[in-house]
Amino acid sequence: MLIEPGKLLAQIDSPADLKKFNKEELVIICDELRQFIIDNVSVYGGHFGASLGVVELTVAIHYVMNTPYDQLVWDVGHQAYGHKILTGRRDIFHTNRLYKGLSGFPKRKESEYDTFGVGHSSTSISAALGMAAASKYKGDKLRQHIAVIGDGSMTGGMAFEAMNHAGVSDTNMIIILNDNCMSIDPNVGALKDYLTDITTSHTYNKVKDDIWKLLGKFSKFGTSAQEVISKVEGAIKSALLKQSNLFESLNLRYFGPVDGHDVDHLVEVLNDLKGIPGPKILHCITVKGKGYALAEKDQTKWHAPGKFDKITGEIAKKIYDTPQAPKYQDVFGHTLVELAEKDDTIMGVTPAMPSGSSMNIMMDAMPDRAYDVGIAEQHAVTFSAGLATQGLRPFCNIYSTFMQRAYDQVLHDVCLQNLPVVFCLDRAGFAGADGPTHHGAYDLAFFRCIPNLVVSAPMNEEELRNLMYSATKYEGPYSIRYPRGQGTMPNWRLPMREIPVGQGRIVKEGEKVAILTIGHIGNYAVEASEMLKSDGLSPAHYDMRFVKPLDGVLLHEVFTKFDKVVTVEDGCLMGGFGSAVLEWMMDHGYSAQVKRLGIPDEVIEHGEQIELHRECGFDPVGIADAVRSFVTLPELMALK
Amino acid sequence: MLIEPGKLLAQIDSPADLKKFNKEELVIICDELRQFIIDNVSVYGGHFGASLGVVELTVAIHYVMNTPYDQLVWDVGHQAYGHKILTGRRDIFHTNRLYKGLSGFPKRKESEYDTFGVGHSSTSISAALGMAAASKYKGDKLRQHIAVIGDGSMTGGMAFEAMNHAGVSDTNMIIILNDNCMSIDPNVGALKDYLTDITTSHTYNKVKDDIWKLLGKFSKFGTSAQEVISKVEGAIKSALLKQSNLFESLNLRYFGPVDGHDVDHLVEVLNDLKGIPGPKILHCITVKGKGYALAEKDQTKWHAPGKFDKITGEIAKKIYDTPQAPKYQDVFGHTLVELAEKDDTIMGVTPAMPSGSSMNIMMDAMPDRAYDVGIAEQHAVTFSAGLATQGLRPFCNIYSTFMQRAYDQVLHDVCLQNLPVVFCLDRAGFAGADGPTHHGAYDLAFFRCIPNLVVSAPMNEEELRNLMYSATKYEGPYSIRYPRGQGTMPNWRLPMREIPVGQGRIVKEGEKVAILTIGHIGNYAVEASEMLKSDGLSPAHYDMRFVKPLDGVLLHEVFTKFDKVVTVEDGCLMGGFGSAVLEWMMDHGYSAQVKRLGIPDEVIEHGEQIELHRECGFDPVGIADAVRSFVTLPELMALK
Repeated sequence: MLIEPGKLLAQIDSPADLKKFNKEELVIICDELRQFIIDNVSVYGGHFGASLGVVELTVAIHYVMNTPYDQLVWDVGHQAYGHKILTGRRDIFHTNRLYKGLSGFPKRKESEYDTFGVGHSSTSISAALGMAAASKYKGDKLRQHIAVIGDGSMTGGMAFEAMNHAGVSDTNMIIILNDNCMSIDPNVGALKDYLTDITTSHTYNKVKDDIWKLLGKFSKFGTSAQEVISKVEGAIKSALLKQSNLFESLNLRYFGPVDGHDVDHLVEVLNDLKGIPGPKILHCITVKGKGYALAEKDQTKWHAPGKFDKITGEIAKKIYDTPQAPKYQDVFGHTLVELAEKDDTIMGVTPAMPSGSSMNIMMDAMPDRAYDVGIAEQHAVTFSAGLATQGLRPFCNIYSTFMQRAYDQVLHDVCLQNLPVVFCLDRAGFAGADGPTHHGAYDLAFFRCIPNLVVSAPMNEEELRNLMYSATKYEGPYSIRYPRGQGTMPNWRLPMREIPVGQGRIVKEGEKVAILTIGHIGNYAVEASEMLKSDGLSPAHYDMRFVKPLDGVLLHEVFTKFDKVVTVEDGCLMGGFGSAVLEWMMDHGYSAQVKRLGIPDEVIEHGEQIELHRECGFDPVGIADAVRSFVTLPELMALK
Repeated sequence: MLIEPGKLLAQIDSPADLKKFNKEELVIICDELRQFIIDNVSVYGGHFGASLGVVELTVAIHYVMNTPYDQLVWDVGHQAYGHKILTGRRDIFHTNRLYKGLSGFPKRKESEYDTFGVGHSSTSISAALGMAAASKYKGDKLRQHIAVIGDGSMTGGMAFEAMNHAGVSDTNMIIILNDNCMSIDPNVGALKDYLTDITTSHTYNKVKDDIWKLLGKFSKFGTSAQEVISKVEGAIKSALLKQSNLFESLNLRYFGPVDGHDVDHLVEVLNDLKGIPGPKILHCITVKGKGYALAEKDQTKWHAPGKFDKITGEIAKKIYDTPQAPKYQDVFGHTLVELAEKDDTIMGVTPAMPSGSSMNIMMDAMPDRAYDVGIAEQHAVTFSAGLATQGLRPFCNIYSTFMQRAYDQVLHDVCLQNLPVVFCLDRAGFAGADGPTHHGAYDLAFFRCIPNLVVSAPMNEEELRNLMYSATKYEGPYSIRYPRGQGTMPNWRLPMREIPVGQGRIVKEGEKVAILTIGHIGNYAVEASEMLKSDGLSPAHYDMRFVKPLDGVLLHEVFTKFDKVVTVEDGCLMGGFGSAVLEWMMDHGYSAQVKRLGIPDEVIEHGEQIELHRECGFDPVGIADAVRSFVTLPELMALK
């Protein structure tokens, strides 16, 4: 079903088309664009609230600026749907986030209007500043460079690093602060409070006006000097303490706050800013989900609601006849509370993903023991390290892909000191529709080279619980990775038991070939074994549970019994689990044929997880094929 | 030679001893402490200027605070010599930075006064906040938590992430901003300018006083209202724009600036601050190198000058009879300028290491084409990505160990987009005396799992030049790692030639065993081959140059000719170069015995590089032994 755009929107295939309309028509275009986003996302799913919140900004920027000559970088990018629709992708927008379809984020390969690929937060100022510095170097004084960044992303440290540089850069930079008080969950921290302060209390101009008025009054009506002095002092103090302007401190000229839903005014302001040289910041107040009442009201729920009925607001849910397995996320959240109830050293830390990681379960149950520190993965890890030095045992939950942001902190602050922080890596393996920027493809490789760090992954809910419990008994850093989505055990709340560090298990005895798996992907090997029955094949299956330390007892058994081994992992082949098995084999003097299945050394695009697993050849069929390929044709014939 | 401490200092074996002295004696103690540091470092080497700059702060903190119950975290930590000397390590301080001796940085294993191990910058606020949050959770309201952080470290994004959290934390946190306008090189960026502003121009109190005075005068002498209004407005504006206080914006109570060399006043101020609840910041102005005139004057040179004559200030230099090979750093710096002179797309980027990396050579020669972005590795990489989108080719030089800080940016911002940024990883392999926090041990493992990224290492100066030149011909991300220190070629400035990506070379034909090396450590294999001559052994030696892509042609040759292979790398064995060779071998159906030499999966402490290589078994003797162990005793006898 193709979504019909409104009349004006239907005429816009590029920003040049947009520029043909007069200023008065922009309000209608905004309405149509908003409606088109609602129509599409309700039918096809995707991110929702963020793009609704920047409809007017998007229209105003493309109306005023000369894109793509002027360079526009969206931070994170899940708010760029309007941008995609206005820049030639309206008629294929229904393929958004589908396998082989449009990316859910700006992407250089997709369009010249997408100047910089994004996905992770807080990169836009650095990237746009690089572009601006290039223009300066080339002597191009007219080109504009615009970074649109949310107040949530602004808490990420690299945004600050970039502002520190921008402030002394003398470049044509406009930073548009899209202030909606939200990340996926409500934004937190001192910066958020500060932005609220400058928005709701006096602004610089207002303070200035007040003083002028006061002094004017004084000279006219002879009010007592004491009164004036006292009032002036109050105003100054308030100004100094609150209005100060953090951004001006960093030598960025500050403008605003302005209403981010007044497209007329935005056009005016942006036109003005084009004429002002140097780095500057425009503070826009917007509402996430603007124009769709339910989304305005419950912004976290409507961040990416999935498909929904746009009239009733009812979000589509699958109906099942049988009890379903829970999401790993919920198993994590409930199990953490269960553990924390019995062990008062356990704490929770999340960098801005309370709902995504289900850390919100602990935050609700034990608000003094669970921290949302904002989009700040680096701080989250070292803060956890600080807690751990005091005899506490933090569970620091960070998506696998975002753990890349805190790599040094894991290595330098936690592992070199052997501190007992438990890292839970959510969204490990393919992220699915979010695509390459969000795939948790590398963690097994980049974690296993860190000394002292235990690297584990559960094959199901029971194992996740057992690993979490076991981690609390271990005096050192311990990581547990698991994928987005459902496990396999509807009846998951089983009593926990300790798994000794580095102990794998036999899932199935077998012959000729051994399959070694790590984590949830092991369930594919179970399916593969079923398929292989019809070939008369019965491979053994080992769930290794730990990439580090590997289970030496089990591996001695494997390499003594088998000379053909398949390893399977939902992670990169370069340096990953299979590679660890090879190292062990060689170090222990064994020699076997080992086929490693996993993510190849290339950028894998977005799609459903199973589509991507198939593409990479480690879905159940791929695993079965790998086992078959090990058995010679005569052998296969003899078996049949 | 043991250094004699001064009379008072000799009586101080712990902060408790320090507290026995009266306030007046603190000045003498500071003098003695400063002298002791000068005496020691001049004889034994080490970091110098930073510790001299915080002598008074160190004494005041330990005098006022109840360490180690009160928790003190030093950022980076090379300024903590005074702290070590006052906390029971005076008499072993001469072992500082020596193999098996004291660490040059605070270290938890070393002392209970070292509450957090440091080395990389900008971690102290996060760590101290974790400790403070633990105290709050435990209901301990008296304990103080102090982070001492330089203005250089403050530009690192994670410091900002931590302040954003600290501002809403309601904890007993004192952040002491040690403002000396320096990193190793002069600090850069808008924050530095801002700190200078609040130090040199009116402070909040001064502005307030001015206004009071003005208005007082107005009421008394009837000055014209207009004049007052105009002056008041100016004062307010200046206050608003400059005095504003960035830290108060983040809800940290700001105190200062104070003279960081007035120990009396520091004691007073710290005593006051103890009584003020909540997170706060004390801005101290200090001089790096304070008390040693030459170090005050040339602060970069005297950051870590090596041994020197404390009277004349002459820095010890080795005298050589023969021409010496240059440092890899200088080869990098001069070659970059040479390349940039011919190719105007080449740019340079360094995060605060102009002198360490020799990027200063390009900064001096082409100031508009080389950027020092401050301690901001994340920004440095994504800024480079931005430059690369505009057809420029940035050489982004970051020490291997600090590249951990920018891991996500390399992966997400550069490599997923296949942008042509050249990463030069200085100080790869063991850092030497700086120890585990600074070892560049992991980069081969954590880089080779990133798609699109070329991973290379030169065996000598000529190869470094050739790889740099080749990188400019390659349309994608390209990394080159090399160690700290000298290469092997006094006559290094040879014409450059392109090395095809992934092409290794044969160093020496041989028999029975093949040695595969990557990078400078290959020179040890040359030495090992020499040693093995007396055993009648002549292994082949291949310098692979690239970890990714591996040279398939060469490896087919190796595994066809040899069934015994030794791999050598100055990097971690887990997932590193040897592991890559194993993967290749298995994927291509070969079977050989492979012994992998490199850094084992444990924390290796500090020491001379060669001491550490020996400890890990890949010095020349270790390599020779590995080759020998492959040859059976009867074979050896037959050969002899």
